[in-house]
Amino acid sequence: MKKVVSIVKIGGDLIENKVALESFLTAFIQMKDVKILVHGGGKRASEMEQQLGIKTQIVGGRRITNRKSLEVATMVYAGVVNKNIVAKLQALGGNALGLSGADGNTIRANKRVVAEIDYGFAGDIARINLATIQQILKMNFIPVFCALTHDGKGQLLNTNADTVAAELAIALSAIYRTHLYYCFEKKGVLHHVNDNNSVITHLNQVRYEDLLKNKRVVEGMLPKLENAFRAVNHQVHKVCLGNISMLTESPEPFTTLTL
Amino acid sequence: MKKVVSIVKIGGDLIENKVALESFLTAFIQMKDVKILVHGGGKRASEMEQQLGIKTQIVGGRRITNRKSLEVATMVYAGVVNKNIVAKLQALGGNALGLSGADGNTIRANKRVVAEIDYGFAGDIARINLATIQQILKMNFIPVFCALTHDGKGQLLNTNADTVAAELAIALSAIYRTHLYYCFEKKGVLHHVNDNNSVITHLNQVRYEDLLKNKRVVEGMLPKLENAFRAVNHQVHKVCLGNISMLTESPEPFTTLTL
Repeated sequence: MKKVVSIVKIGGDLIENKVALESFLTAFIQMKDVKILVHGGGKRASEMEQQLGIKTQIVGGRRITNRKSLEVATMVYAGVVNKNIVAKLQALGGNALGLSGADGNTIRANKRVVAEIDYGFAGDIARINLATIQQILKMNFIPVFCALTHDGKGQLLNTNADTVAAELAIALSAIYRTHLYYCFEKKGVLHHVNDNNSVITHLNQVRYEDLLKNKRVVEGMLPKLENAFRAVNHQVHKVCLGNISMLTESPEPFTTLTL
Repeated sequence: MKKVVSIVKIGGDLIENKVALESFLTAFIQMKDVKILVHGGGKRASEMEQQLGIKTQIVGGRRITNRKSLEVATMVYAGVVNKNIVAKLQALGGNALGLSGADGNTIRANKRVVAEIDYGFAGDIARINLATIQQILKMNFIPVFCALTHDGKGQLLNTNADTVAAELAIALSAIYRTHLYYCFEKKGVLHHVNDNNSVITHLNQVRYEDLLKNKRVVEGMLPKLENAFRAVNHQVHKVCLGNISMLTESPEPFTTLTL
């Protein structure tokens, strides 16, 4: 049987909360599978932009990455967020190795083509370097990816962390049995947005489209679910959404996606 | 014969100058040895501190690293400087891998003990993880180290980049023939500070002490030369100081240290 690799993605709400981050990292390190962590950091980047007097541009829920905001993203994602997570995992006994897509040429992307909107230095993933990631995993490192990629011509690009996690899981499915976890503060996809106990434990594409039609999915969940269903449809063995408890041996209810 | 590993350290003057950095990276990538790059970024960090309204504290020529300035150092060194160098080396065909000392537990340090001065989050190197660095080199990665280390308990620490380079060279000397290059804007150690053509091509400890007595060494060169002589005295095969040309096949005069 193929070896299991778990790819866990965490977002801003966990990164910003010191206590929650510690709990998460402790749960993460105890997972028995070979594992990869992917993190965002958008909230922290927006704060830093504000401190530096850079105007955060968001169009249709998506961030526009100009030269200055790319610099901030690089400082925040690859710098302070990534290295602090790596140092904390090392303290917990995990041999973490922080990576952007430029490091080891692990994730190559193309600058998004300008159509109606110019997203600036936003990267759409072109190629996951499976051979190199496999080598890194074989050395027993725990890769910690931030949401930056590169174009191979010297340009760093900003790529959505949910997408990075999904594309890593899809690529790794060629040689591993992959599990993809989107870990955040909610217990999962909720039937009633304000009731954290109304977790939909199994969600398939048909039911998801029903929820969409009835506008039952909060906007922030849309890109996550889009990426998650893309993974389900591309050989990723297990795709789950929920809070930290989903990673432990006695999980509370969480959402599992199915075809 | 032992394999040669070249460790090249670059400082702020090269990092800040886009054209000079491109020239350096091109010369660096053409060096035939197995190689490691170590970079600082202090000038950029000071600029960022200023932009953020953080007061840069310097006592006796040494930076005091409080919690806020450590965060800036982490953003600047491990973030924007490191990842841009990595992306540029990738574009030049070098398989660069950006590292802090926390990544792969490559460089462990101890927080400097408070004596007369409290240097804050400054790290004195305790252990270079030779086995891991050797593994990384065997995978044909080009390690790009920024000047951050960790204490193994989750704390990142700020360590002088000249020292990181020297300690890497010393540790690697156990298994490789090591060459250490300090690369900056001057042609080398100068006999007359303002005459860039008065390069001292061979400098030994006795002559260096003479220069020191006669106050012929500019202050900024002192930590570099201290680290460089420490390397000479600890089995590093070749230690050189000079500008980019020193790395090429037709170098101008530069300084080589001898016992």
